[in-house]
Amino acid sequence: AIFGAIQSQLGPHKGPLNGRRIVVTAGPTFEPLDPVRGMTNRSSGRQGYAIAEALARKGADVTLISGPVALPAPGGVRRIDVETADQMLEASLNALPCDVFVAVAAVADWRPKQAATEKQKKGPDAELSVTFVKNPDILETVSKHLDFRPKLVIGFAAETSELEAYARAKLASKGCDAILANDVSDDVFGSAKNQVSLADLDGFTAIPGTTKADVANFVARYIHKRLG
Amino acid sequence: AIFGAIQSQLGPHKGPLNGRRIVVTAGPTFEPLDPVRGMTNRSSGRQGYAIAEALARKGADVTLISGPVALPAPGGVRRIDVETADQMLEASLNALPCDVFVAVAAVADWRPKQAATEKQKKGPDAELSVTFVKNPDILETVSKHLDFRPKLVIGFAAETSELEAYARAKLASKGCDAILANDVSDDVFGSAKNQVSLADLDGFTAIPGTTKADVANFVARYIHKRLG
Repeated sequence: AIFGAIQSQLGPHKGPLNGRRIVVTAGPTFEPLDPVRGMTNRSSGRQGYAIAEALARKGADVTLISGPVALPAPGGVRRIDVETADQMLEASLNALPCDVFVAVAAVADWRPKQAATEKQKKGPDAELSVTFVKNPDILETVSKHLDFRPKLVIGFAAETSELEAYARAKLASKGCDAILANDVSDDVFGSAKNQVSLADLDGFTAIPGTTKADVANFVARYIHKRLG
Repeated sequence: AIFGAIQSQLGPHKGPLNGRRIVVTAGPTFEPLDPVRGMTNRSSGRQGYAIAEALARKGADVTLISGPVALPAPGGVRRIDVETADQMLEASLNALPCDVFVAVAAVADWRPKQAATEKQKKGPDAELSVTFVKNPDILETVSKHLDFRPKLVIGFAAETSELEAYARAKLASKGCDAILANDVSDDVFGSAKNQVSLADLDGFTAIPGTTKADVANFVARYIHKRLG
């Protein structure tokens, strides 16, 4: 019994996704302005971690590429810690080839054009202007990868309005197979609750249940079905 | 024995700081750019939480005003959650009068001049310019408070260079009684380790020990001595 318990904690699970390599990104990215300050997104990482956990439970070989969060890695999941969008892209490309890529991370769209190496002091100016440049688009880069495009690529869209329209637009422009559209107009950040719909070529489906674990289990079942 | 354990968890501690009202700020602030994005500082909140805990253990009546962190409130401490510098200032002023104010939070010096109420979509532009305005200075506001200036006000300075010079300058300009100068050129963020010196009118003292708990205990003893 003790051996069994240790096995189920540490060993690979047996399940319907056995042998499938799945990469999940999670958490925010942090884009430094100087050694102390930076731009970030609201994201506790909980939804991505829950998805990684649900996939590992079904037997998948899961790599979790995580921005800075305060969560322990789920059992049986390989976790790679990154900070910036550039680092997350590099880690994602290094994790290819894989069968499924699930981009849950709230990647900062922009980063400060220049990051100072020393902490910037407050000057006398009342205003400060910072120029940002676009970050690489990880979801699009993986979805349009010429050599290692995964069989299934799923993205996430956190929106405060027009959920379905934005999700459909993102599905088309990024070249991915499904978008999980997350209504963040309510206070879901850091909470165990979430409200998510899934957009793919077949339609737009509200995911039943209200917790991040419900969403994770739905996504794991969806992946299993799509891989057939 | 069980009653004793519950008492020491829940009840007020008896100690040398009994009856003293102490306010501690901790963690980063988050300054929204839109409902998803914002500017923040690197800060896990651990040093501030450790100081609040050490003060409560010595019997102080501790109010912990905390930015967004993933830490549980220490036992016996009243915690008030805030997000922005403006909210932290308001909560700090509401917590006056107090005997001691310890400003450990890594407050963002700047906030976006305009925060959008809907998530901003990526446009075709390759660059984005954001104007920031200065945040209120909580340490200075409390240190120079006309009606409720606490007996002892201690600030924190996270620096990557010229620790002592910046600490002395901050001590003078803010009007506080002591500055804890934190060398963040090494990788202390989120770690249990810290390297801190204390600057006051008597000198500049390296705090012995290397953990955030060591620093917290030193600060608690220092406060006890100064109130003495």
